[in-house]
Amino acid sequence: MTPQFELICVGNELLIGKVVNTNASWLSRRITELGGNVRRVVVVGDSLDEISQSLKSALERKPFMVITTGGLGPTYDDMTLEGVARALGVPLEENPEALKMIQDKYASLSLELTPARRKMARLPKGSAALPNPVGMAPGCLAEHGGTKIVCLPGVPSEMEAIFSQSVEPIITKASGGLVFREGSLIVRGIPESGLAPILDEVRKKNPLAYFKSHPKRHEGKPLIEIHVSNTSESKEAAEKIVRDGMKDLIEALKSCGAEIVWGL
Amino acid sequence: MTPQFELICVGNELLIGKVVNTNASWLSRRITELGGNVRRVVVVGDSLDEISQSLKSALERKPFMVITTGGLGPTYDDMTLEGVARALGVPLEENPEALKMIQDKYASLSLELTPARRKMARLPKGSAALPNPVGMAPGCLAEHGGTKIVCLPGVPSEMEAIFSQSVEPIITKASGGLVFREGSLIVRGIPESGLAPILDEVRKKNPLAYFKSHPKRHEGKPLIEIHVSNTSESKEAAEKIVRDGMKDLIEALKSCGAEIVWGL
Repeated sequence: MTPQFELICVGNELLIGKVVNTNASWLSRRITELGGNVRRVVVVGDSLDEISQSLKSALERKPFMVITTGGLGPTYDDMTLEGVARALGVPLEENPEALKMIQDKYASLSLELTPARRKMARLPKGSAALPNPVGMAPGCLAEHGGTKIVCLPGVPSEMEAIFSQSVEPIITKASGGLVFREGSLIVRGIPESGLAPILDEVRKKNPLAYFKSHPKRHEGKPLIEIHVSNTSESKEAAEKIVRDGMKDLIEALKSCGAEIVWGL
Repeated sequence: MTPQFELICVGNELLIGKVVNTNASWLSRRITELGGNVRRVVVVGDSLDEISQSLKSALERKPFMVITTGGLGPTYDDMTLEGVARALGVPLEENPEALKMIQDKYASLSLELTPARRKMARLPKGSAALPNPVGMAPGCLAEHGGTKIVCLPGVPSEMEAIFSQSVEPIITKASGGLVFREGSLIVRGIPESGLAPILDEVRKKNPLAYFKSHPKRHEGKPLIEIHVSNTSESKEAAEKIVRDGMKDLIEALKSCGAEIVWGL
């Protein structure tokens, strides 16, 4: 069973289009490679209500894990952990491990532990602190009704470092060695609407492969990428499914006179 | 009253991290500039259930408009309009205007109207077709319980063209001339946790301006962008609020010995 994931990305900067949500695509890519399935991404602003309501909704769908990004810092609008605590129905409390991590970091920089800094050690009761190898705010791991809730910072380098060190091992274990493989090619000279019946045929012959067409240019001068993917219990199985799907696809395209520009 | 927006972006390619969701940031940026407020972005896969459930949830929050992107094309996994119809409790039916648009486009390319192509003219009953100046699939405009539902293609050039031509005028009218203005500066030499109490003070003096800090580098060698913004009923009002906020911010930062690297 592929473990299911939901992402909740917090930050007004995402909702005014100031920042492109590369955290969501980075996490989705890594989770997919590790054998997981991202079912939904939700972006909300720096609002306690929005954060706690979106987490409550995600928990109702009972995924394996919900990952939040953003809102762990020391400023007044960093309120993700308070929103998570509210959704879980627990108070925030100073976590001794988190406090130790923060104390050590500021001590090493000869900076004092102000209230704003100390705020970053307040985690939802019952959760564990995840070390931040790059920045200051620790991540956080909680559980609720069988779902793990992981909170990561919004700064990409910090988010990626905590994920790689503390979250990847949990996912690898849960996915039981599931492996994602993919291939793609670009086809010229056939519009997406002409491709539809061809893809239907190839898909019937390859029910385990997932085929998706991505038009790159409109139908007057069509250029379409076709992406083939599979998640299986072994690298060999996933690769065979993708390879067989690609082979049938290429044959079908060639027999229709379509030009394959690039394949891998 | 600022009109509220929600975006629903449809596509498995977004959930495996193959594609970065620049459609969401482009739309968020444009809507903000036009005086609207994007409250939530939801990304779901090519699944009828996910599309219709996410739209139903959005409609419960009664925004002014929900915009969907992706899933309007001719292939089997283009199912956004079917998902929208399901959420609205209406059937899909061939829309004469949409059919005319599609017929004219294919005729101009000397291509026949296959069933896959004709599928793009099937819109939720009661909705209007929005012309696509760039590609084939028309957009769609529906209404439900006071909320407008706009469906746009996933190809960025087509999405942007339909939005600019058919959706912008609706938003401009609804926002009644609200205007968004912003400014930002980068400050060096003060960590985000040291900035927190300074920002609190400046914020109290400027309750209408929205201040947000974006750490660019971790706290050892801090480099932080501070973004100041406001949406008001006139350009002059929004600009004054941002300008006053920036002025107080710069003064407060200088009096703490922080170095302002770049401002505008």
